[in-house]
Amino acid sequence: MDSLTPTTAGRQEALAARYGAAAIPPAGPWNETIAGMLAHRSVRAFRPDALPEGTLETLVAAASSAATSSNLQTWSVVAVRDPAKRAAMAAIAGGQKHIEQCPLFLVWLADVSRNARLSEAEGVALEGLPYLEAFLVASVDAALAAQNAVVAAESLGLSTVYIGALRNDVVRVAELLDLPPGAVGVFGLCVGYAAVPGEVKPRLPQSMVLHHERYDATREQTQRAAYDAVLGEFSARNGMGPDGWTRRVIGRLGAIKAMAGRDKLVAALRAIGFPLK
Amino acid sequence: MDSLTPTTAGRQEALAARYGAAAIPPAGPWNETIAGMLAHRSVRAFRPDALPEGTLETLVAAASSAATSSNLQTWSVVAVRDPAKRAAMAAIAGGQKHIEQCPLFLVWLADVSRNARLSEAEGVALEGLPYLEAFLVASVDAALAAQNAVVAAESLGLSTVYIGALRNDVVRVAELLDLPPGAVGVFGLCVGYAAVPGEVKPRLPQSMVLHHERYDATREQTQRAAYDAVLGEFSARNGMGPDGWTRRVIGRLGAIKAMAGRDKLVAALRAIGFPLK
Repeated sequence: MDSLTPTTAGRQEALAARYGAAAIPPAGPWNETIAGMLAHRSVRAFRPDALPEGTLETLVAAASSAATSSNLQTWSVVAVRDPAKRAAMAAIAGGQKHIEQCPLFLVWLADVSRNARLSEAEGVALEGLPYLEAFLVASVDAALAAQNAVVAAESLGLSTVYIGALRNDVVRVAELLDLPPGAVGVFGLCVGYAAVPGEVKPRLPQSMVLHHERYDATREQTQRAAYDAVLGEFSARNGMGPDGWTRRVIGRLGAIKAMAGRDKLVAALRAIGFPLK
Repeated sequence: MDSLTPTTAGRQEALAARYGAAAIPPAGPWNETIAGMLAHRSVRAFRPDALPEGTLETLVAAASSAATSSNLQTWSVVAVRDPAKRAAMAAIAGGQKHIEQCPLFLVWLADVSRNARLSEAEGVALEGLPYLEAFLVASVDAALAAQNAVVAAESLGLSTVYIGALRNDVVRVAELLDLPPGAVGVFGLCVGYAAVPGEVKPRLPQSMVLHHERYDATREQTQRAAYDAVLGEFSARNGMGPDGWTRRVIGRLGAIKAMAGRDKLVAALRAIGFPLK
């Protein structure tokens, strides 16, 4: 039985790691690709080892292969190696050193600027561009593309972590990368070899996120308490304190100051070419 | 050489299908998972065959395994079987019959309502919730989760298509699914067995979407003309008319009326619990 043969035991183990042993969902089909996704964990400490030649292009080919709204392809990606730019982005992100240390750092852009240039070159107005809808489509396009790159990277034995904290200052990120109006760094992504092994983080049970026919939160408080216990045990085992999910949500969303500038995102986006009508 | 052994010839063929023969990127690492992603195509005609038992739960397990901002998990998903609800959503989406015909239809939610209920139950205000940032995080969370489900589905031999046109009327979708305030259907997803074989759609060349250190669009007009030719040939071969990318972008974004209601998304989101501050 080699690692390419997904087993029933492996499936149950993977589901238990993802949801906790008490919340394993009904068994379904399984294979190596799915097992790889179930094993995902975000990594914030990377070995300095370089990636194999062509890795970046393979990850972008996976990204290009994701669905994109009406084939508009309103995303782009910038690979950043320059240490000064990396340091500036680590500072924007509140001192996340892995941005400087990972062998590959990508900034994923929601990008309607390509369409704006097309409009200019063709002499045809694109009335749909200044809307929130266009920004949303571009952000979702960027997310679908990036997630394909993440799955590809992890299938190659690499690890990743998304850097949403680039949004603390999207104007400065745009300056650092010479972004044209209508392009914004939605998030970063560190890619490399994990420095230390780690444990899969348990998620909310399927009973809390999967609904049938209509949204039903009637049993949510009980389910949340159970998840608080599962996440609390994970956190304690991994030296992250005893807090469950409830305390962590409150810590993250309770006070405006935890937004670290992202409370000004509307104004910042308008300043770099997204009117958000 | 079985289908589980990715070959160099297979890689070049897959990259040529994705980018056109004249824009194949440098060769990089390759495996079965990546080959599966490269073979993606959106499908809008499904066989009526039911999915294997447990497929939905496996897809959601893959979705749960995607990264999520600060582990907030601000997404949910509703599986819709009811024919009347399916028909209503097909109508919202401009008559997309595959919404009624596919064996599994999922509506992916950007969902901060779970955090709002937590706030209420714990008696702690969550000041971060009413911001555009929270909506964006939730939409990106939903996209990362959905894309993992898509990769999982395709690895099982299933096909998919995203339905962004649910955003034509997010208020009505919220009514149909009894969504609480702070939950919105960002897009739908049809899942099933493709009724007909199809061809991979070529995307913009990597030279247009992948930048190094800084954004560089200096050669874009030439590159766009080349992609217009590649996409035009694909479209002609597949009975979709001779238009290249430029004409299609103008058709999609040129006039407000092509937005089919999505020009009112800001007001609609505010009506269902997203102040977008």
